[in-house]
Amino acid sequence: MTRTVISSASKEVVIGFDQPFVMIGERINPTGRKLLAAEMKEGNYERVIADALAQVAAGAQMLDINAGIPLADEPAILAEVIRLVQSITDVPLAIDSSMVAGLEAGLAVYQGRALVNSTTGEDEVLERVLPLVKKYDAAVVAISNDDSGISENPDDRFEIAKKIVQRAADHGIKACDVIVDPLVMPIGAINSAGRDVFYLLRRLREELKVNTTCGASNISFGLPNRHGINNAFLPMVAAAGMTSAIVNPLHEGLVASIKAADVLNGVDPSCMAWIRANRDPNAEPSGEGRGGRRGGRRRG
Amino acid sequence: MTRTVISSASKEVVIGFDQPFVMIGERINPTGRKLLAAEMKEGNYERVIADALAQVAAGAQMLDINAGIPLADEPAILAEVIRLVQSITDVPLAIDSSMVAGLEAGLAVYQGRALVNSTTGEDEVLERVLPLVKKYDAAVVAISNDDSGISENPDDRFEIAKKIVQRAADHGIKACDVIVDPLVMPIGAINSAGRDVFYLLRRLREELKVNTTCGASNISFGLPNRHGINNAFLPMVAAAGMTSAIVNPLHEGLVASIKAADVLNGVDPSCMAWIRANRDPNAEPSGEGRGGRRGGRRRG
Repeated sequence: MTRTVISSASKEVVIGFDQPFVMIGERINPTGRKLLAAEMKEGNYERVIADALAQVAAGAQMLDINAGIPLADEPAILAEVIRLVQSITDVPLAIDSSMVAGLEAGLAVYQGRALVNSTTGEDEVLERVLPLVKKYDAAVVAISNDDSGISENPDDRFEIAKKIVQRAADHGIKACDVIVDPLVMPIGAINSAGRDVFYLLRRLREELKVNTTCGASNISFGLPNRHGINNAFLPMVAAAGMTSAIVNPLHEGLVASIKAADVLNGVDPSCMAWIRANRDPNAEPSGEGRGGRRGGRRRG
Repeated sequence: MTRTVISSASKEVVIGFDQPFVMIGERINPTGRKLLAAEMKEGNYERVIADALAQVAAGAQMLDINAGIPLADEPAILAEVIRLVQSITDVPLAIDSSMVAGLEAGLAVYQGRALVNSTTGEDEVLERVLPLVKKYDAAVVAISNDDSGISENPDDRFEIAKKIVQRAADHGIKACDVIVDPLVMPIGAINSAGRDVFYLLRRLREELKVNTTCGASNISFGLPNRHGINNAFLPMVAAAGMTSAIVNPLHEGLVASIKAADVLNGVDPSCMAWIRANRDPNAEPSGEGRGGRRGGRRRG
């Protein structure tokens, strides 16, 4: 039973086949957020603090921290934000940078066992990121593209994931500490993007036996009512075996769809989390509907 | 590519692996609806008409018609309701009765190619229902329980479905005209009920190559916020291969979750149905979120 343990100084989160789906809050990321980028560059972190607290309050078990701001000292800002966020919340963090120097600066100040986000299957990247992951005893997100780019063939992506897991092993990193991102493409551009991911997730879980994650909102890129697509996509990937995702827990209906998927995947024992969250005098009487009728019918 | 064709006098609905998910409206069913039962028994069908029109307006491609009222002349009422509903809507119908006499009375008046709901794997039932299905060239819902009752083992249920398909063939009924109901048990009572159904649906689609349906709301029987569970369950069963379900299209969020699942399963070509249904000036800017960013990152 694959389990990846991520921790802060005081709290542990387990990502695993037998565990509730782990939501990694995506908000602390200046990509596409001009105002946040400007504020972070000036050392104004009020919005970062508000986003951190709001995402945890909404149910995020982890937070992704990205400081990718053009023409800024990304490693210094990333380290500062990680220190700050760890001082106000106890959830474990994903250190998210496209710069190896950013990952290293973040790992150097991080309290606990971090998730490094990310490496790809590109040889140069693997040889620079994996030693860091080993040095700091972290876990790592493995994005299933390589020097040849992103393949539209899920079997190619499976082979890249397999290669990353093998390369990690060469560096003394266990497969359970590699969380594969199968790469979610926009369904508006690639009609098979959903089915490809469901198929690849099953292979990653059943054959490679690794945990998985993704930037879930990619799937609805370019479409209207993105929440409607995302809120159906998350239960579908959870059914296919995905065990975590980088999401915005503040989006309407998203947390509920993931908690319902936990119930339906049998990782909310006795539905206790669901019942606690949904006890409501206005809820439908439980006897309503077709429940218990089918299959037990007498024939006249 | 498995396809089941159901029709009314003027309209055809195709249930199939390459088709949008088919919603069969469940509302015209006196089970657990005392007022509707009393009205139907008195020959007052105003509520039946309202339920039929509302479900079709909400997006139901088919309607299930059930007249199971204690101490009433079920066959006569069922036939009358089928005539009435076919006079006000053009959607094909599922004729739903636990009485063979009810199925026969309904088939006798039905205009088009009906879906008979249902047979089980019980020998006596098969021998009485299958000849009717053949006589009227209908399709049939096959519930995967037999004389030994309902097994909690999905492999047992697969064998019962296989037996029903074989028995149907003996009666000259094609496998594509048998729509298997894997039997959805309440997740509140059986923690593995969801996973069992997902697993069984994959076997039914990949090995037996049949269409599938279910009384979807059974899954949330006894739990609070049933809509929250049902609206996640439908995308999950659709991802596992289910091609239709008996649902209440008037429940909040249900139709949207199924239409989103169509997009994600690649059966809404170019997302045109989704885009038509969701064009909205207040929709999020399509560039928002992490879309298009992951996997294409440069390394510093």
